[in-house]
Amino acid sequence: MGEGYEINAYSVEGKVDYSDTVKRFGISYIDEKLKARIQEDAGDLHFMIRRGIYFAHRDMEWLLDQYEKGKKFYVYTGIAPSGGMTIAHLIPFIMSQWLQEKFGAEVYIQIPDEEKFLVKKDPDLTLERTHSLAYEDALNIAALGFTPGKTKIFLNTEYATILYKQAVRVSKHITFSIIKDAFGFSSDSNIGMIFYTSMQAVPAFLKSIEEGENVPCLIPLGIDQDVHFRVARNAIDKLGYYKPAIMHSTFLPSLKGGPKMSSSDPQNTIYLDDSPDVVQKKVNQAITGQQSTAELQKKLGGDPDKCAVCQYNKYLFEPDDKKLKEIFEGERKGTLLAGEHKKDLAAKINGFLENHRKNKERIRNKLDSFILKC
Amino acid sequence: MGEGYEINAYSVEGKVDYSDTVKRFGISYIDEKLKARIQEDAGDLHFMIRRGIYFAHRDMEWLLDQYEKGKKFYVYTGIAPSGGMTIAHLIPFIMSQWLQEKFGAEVYIQIPDEEKFLVKKDPDLTLERTHSLAYEDALNIAALGFTPGKTKIFLNTEYATILYKQAVRVSKHITFSIIKDAFGFSSDSNIGMIFYTSMQAVPAFLKSIEEGENVPCLIPLGIDQDVHFRVARNAIDKLGYYKPAIMHSTFLPSLKGGPKMSSSDPQNTIYLDDSPDVVQKKVNQAITGQQSTAELQKKLGGDPDKCAVCQYNKYLFEPDDKKLKEIFEGERKGTLLAGEHKKDLAAKINGFLENHRKNKERIRNKLDSFILKC
Repeated sequence: MGEGYEINAYSVEGKVDYSDTVKRFGISYIDEKLKARIQEDAGDLHFMIRRGIYFAHRDMEWLLDQYEKGKKFYVYTGIAPSGGMTIAHLIPFIMSQWLQEKFGAEVYIQIPDEEKFLVKKDPDLTLERTHSLAYEDALNIAALGFTPGKTKIFLNTEYATILYKQAVRVSKHITFSIIKDAFGFSSDSNIGMIFYTSMQAVPAFLKSIEEGENVPCLIPLGIDQDVHFRVARNAIDKLGYYKPAIMHSTFLPSLKGGPKMSSSDPQNTIYLDDSPDVVQKKVNQAITGQQSTAELQKKLGGDPDKCAVCQYNKYLFEPDDKKLKEIFEGERKGTLLAGEHKKDLAAKINGFLENHRKNKERIRNKLDSFILKC
Repeated sequence: MGEGYEINAYSVEGKVDYSDTVKRFGISYIDEKLKARIQEDAGDLHFMIRRGIYFAHRDMEWLLDQYEKGKKFYVYTGIAPSGGMTIAHLIPFIMSQWLQEKFGAEVYIQIPDEEKFLVKKDPDLTLERTHSLAYEDALNIAALGFTPGKTKIFLNTEYATILYKQAVRVSKHITFSIIKDAFGFSSDSNIGMIFYTSMQAVPAFLKSIEEGENVPCLIPLGIDQDVHFRVARNAIDKLGYYKPAIMHSTFLPSLKGGPKMSSSDPQNTIYLDDSPDVVQKKVNQAITGQQSTAELQKKLGGDPDKCAVCQYNKYLFEPDDKKLKEIFEGERKGTLLAGEHKKDLAAKINGFLENHRKNKERIRNKLDSFILKC
């Protein structure tokens, strides 16, 4: 818990103070020097890193040391299905796909279809439901352009013969006390959710097991997921594997203003399967940093930091820094009015979703080649 | 904890008061009426039931109601590998094989190769070690005469894709509080051992899942394992499956006098791979209920209840009640002297082990047909 906000693996409340999380979690900023090094090694710099959406890290200098010595890393990320996939969920996958493209990294994607079933009290969220959502998520992920043969997607309930054996080894190094403190669980928490983090730890060293030698791992994740690896990195180290490096992203704000776009509030959230009309409607209701009337806006200008429309451009939909600057300037100076601002964003989102739907259809019958089972 | 003894899944201390366990665990005696009914249904009565080695039960009347209405049950038992298999470990398997023969029951045998790894602090007991012991156990079990095709043996780490998914469903109904009270765990217990009982619960309803309809299940087990199912039966009931029926056995006493023969004290224990010489030597050192000299024994007689040699005949090596009675009488009246008493038992054990070794060799290359993997 921080001053005025709370952040853990299962809820985020209040306005997150990211500089405070850096201190409290013992992580480091992705500073200009590190950005330059990533750019040098990748031959490019993703706008999410450039803009500080990926703002912090663990052990990325070490990871790049290894890379520069010729030792490739792999990427691990994931999503816990609980509802349809939203654009906020894309952030680690877009980053993973970019890392694959630029560093030639294999990507391991865990879909823990048991996690939200265990944690949520919703009786409709059965294991059958999360399992079926997991396959929708897998299709949405594969459609982002991952390389077949270098991308492994697995559902925990379908890959448990591989995962559980290693999770057992992890779990021996984690006590209930540690879990209680890290996740805010109590004696009334169920024993599945208490054990679960062991399953999430496994893909961070699974490739080392497969290869029979240590392979560096990089995990792009939302800052709320860091807690799993604060716990797991110690256990992984005790097992003799490299601790995974991590890069942390901030949260895509909610459309109506809030610290995090959450899939539990449909009106605050854009789903990948929202129709163009629905997208337009949701964007129309988005909060902006603008004044109450067009006249006042023209006179006083607005605040891009408080404007969801500006932020959505920044996080996902305007990769061009020059154009993004124009949007932010327009908002700040009052030359960009809410109506056209929103129309422009909705068009970009719908363009993206339209393209994504096409990619999904193209890949649907190839999805099996991405998915591991045992 | 009882008066003067302690019994839970991971340790047994003091002289177990079995009538007290019946009260405390809320289980029922296998009384004469139930014995007669088993005999009626089975066409036979195993000496372990007749002699009260299987002394208590849960829901066996219900199970036989079902059976008599034409609804077959299956049998579930198991062993957690931590050292070589001893003759005490045979008790549930001999009973399971008998139930298979007499009731045509399928038998599911779980070998939780993670359990003792999680619970024991011994650094030599790696998961690789328990896994390798699990295969030795599987061969020892299959060699007891189970019917191929009606007997399924699975190691948890090799069958986790089936087991973990169901264990997750069980675990949602079990809190840390429940586990703490039931198993005597603390906040310093590792999260693997906290979760583990969920995995042990699964085979008690697995056949119902496979069949798509409820199938009654009977679990023969040592009374120390009842705790797993005191916890699991509630969870299984909440999931909508039949609670498993259970039959409880008392402990084979240790050779030198103690409540339970334990594989952690090699000299108190006869292993299935002990050589004839070793068996003879261990039996020679066994406690008897006899007087200190042959003269006194002839004069005063001994106490069969305190005599490990009598008890080993009763539990495992003298199926003939008439012969057993002679042995007990001889001990009681002082006509049977320690030397010949022990020689006779050692010969019986060695005869059994010799035959068992032959059965193992005969079945070794067929073992794969018993083992399920995924």
